[in-house]
Amino acid sequence: MQKKFNRIVIFGVGLIGGSFALALKKSAAVRQIVGVGRSHASLETAKQLGIIDHIATSVEEAVLGADLIIIAAPVAQTELILRSIEPFLASSTIVTDAGSTKTDVVAAARLALGDKIGQFVPAHPIAGRELNGPEAALVDLYVGKKAVITRLPENTDESVARVAWAWQQCGAIIHHLEPEQHDAVFAAVSHLPHLLAYALVDDIARKPHADTLFQYAASGFRDFTRIAGSSPEMWRDITLANRVAMLEELDSYTARLAELRTYLVSADSDAIEGVYRRAQHARHNWISAIEAAEKQHREGGD
Amino acid sequence: MQKKFNRIVIFGVGLIGGSFALALKKSAAVRQIVGVGRSHASLETAKQLGIIDHIATSVEEAVLGADLIIIAAPVAQTELILRSIEPFLASSTIVTDAGSTKTDVVAAARLALGDKIGQFVPAHPIAGRELNGPEAALVDLYVGKKAVITRLPENTDESVARVAWAWQQCGAIIHHLEPEQHDAVFAAVSHLPHLLAYALVDDIARKPHADTLFQYAASGFRDFTRIAGSSPEMWRDITLANRVAMLEELDSYTARLAELRTYLVSADSDAIEGVYRRAQHARHNWISAIEAAEKQHREGGD
Repeated sequence: MQKKFNRIVIFGVGLIGGSFALALKKSAAVRQIVGVGRSHASLETAKQLGIIDHIATSVEEAVLGADLIIIAAPVAQTELILRSIEPFLASSTIVTDAGSTKTDVVAAARLALGDKIGQFVPAHPIAGRELNGPEAALVDLYVGKKAVITRLPENTDESVARVAWAWQQCGAIIHHLEPEQHDAVFAAVSHLPHLLAYALVDDIARKPHADTLFQYAASGFRDFTRIAGSSPEMWRDITLANRVAMLEELDSYTARLAELRTYLVSADSDAIEGVYRRAQHARHNWISAIEAAEKQHREGGD
Repeated sequence: MQKKFNRIVIFGVGLIGGSFALALKKSAAVRQIVGVGRSHASLETAKQLGIIDHIATSVEEAVLGADLIIIAAPVAQTELILRSIEPFLASSTIVTDAGSTKTDVVAAARLALGDKIGQFVPAHPIAGRELNGPEAALVDLYVGKKAVITRLPENTDESVARVAWAWQQCGAIIHHLEPEQHDAVFAAVSHLPHLLAYALVDDIARKPHADTLFQYAASGFRDFTRIAGSSPEMWRDITLANRVAMLEELDSYTARLAELRTYLVSADSDAIEGVYRRAQHARHNWISAIEAAEKQHREGGD
């Protein structure tokens, strides 16, 4: 049985950090939430929305007395934030993050925290929206979603359990992966699709007749490019942090496109239909599996 | 003032043809709807769902007395269907279609209809779902959506107005394009995105660790690949019919990906962010324009 958090500090009170705060407040898993961030206006908004209770006046003031610190800022800021925290970090405080990449975050944490690295439990909640900022935060953003913990050899079972409990209080389902495995998986199913969507919109926007093209873009285009509405800064950081795995996925994908191109050139009806049919089938099976898992989860399983 | 249709015949009573039927019935713009199709079971379903009033026993029986015939089958079937219709086609009957490509459809119609080509008014409603068949038909599928008419020099103003009126009765907004212009536009904003989505799902499905990858795919991936749930047969036909324009768009897009690849290799933060930022901005402007147009439409404009 885990006990309530006394003081949680959130670095970056936007969509991800704000939704975490709202969910923990709703489940009464925390007494006080403190916000730290680059934009004071954004922190004021978060306070007015009841997402945080207090805006920290300094990192020192924020960190002292915290039992959990979560970094929910673009991943490239992780090292700097951890360096600013480290001098004030009590041995009883657990630090975690919500970054979409893990290998780089772990490397940054090792540099910044030194022999306090055991206090850092890396995590990644698999949820998002194409909107940013505290106004976009949702109390139920994580309900039924996965939260992946990529534990370090230095982590204690207790600190891992504490971070897991926090995400469970948000309604998330805990998964465990190695940091490298995490990054390879998300390069394929999340990071590359974001790059592809951004690239398509940019390609169309640069054409001389872009206005006409956008005029006839409809719901299929809207869904396909929804993720291109995401924060450019956040996704620039993710792309750079995970560029080795992303290059591998990009090369695999462009090889597939080159193959399809030859089918188009030769008007190979069977080959084109084969690709489309396999894809439709795989997607159908995937959706069915998701829906079965969601049903099981709603009915109290896990 | 247009008068009610007496008898509309639909070749292919699936999502597109079925939704057309439901909308025209709702607006009382037709007395009788007759269905023709390859699958008798599917036609029976359409009849049970109240989409059609009568299942034709032969093409001859279907076509006789029709004032409007619409072909809503995969585009590769257009020529064959028109050839089957032609011998029974009265001079007062208008023929139209709902195909996603127009240059090939017009060429097929010229071959099949000969000097009756003036009776064929090509059209394309810009609406869809990733589901197929009469069960997927929706009475409001076309409300507020565009219907593009690519009129032929041989069409009379009266027959074009009649087809436009039918789509307006479904709630659609009429646009006019040349067939070639239509195909170039939709290659960019619809046909290529479908190919890209199918290619991504197929690429992932073929990997040895596909199960793990799909396990962590989330809402972003779901939206990005929604169009890969579409009918493989329908999209094979569209891809082949519009392959010249699609090759052009595919080459433009893969050039953009190659450019992004060099940014990844050199970890060019500014260049990556530049692409993402332009794309997000263009998409934001596009969504704002759509929403303004929808608002105007709801308020009785257009």
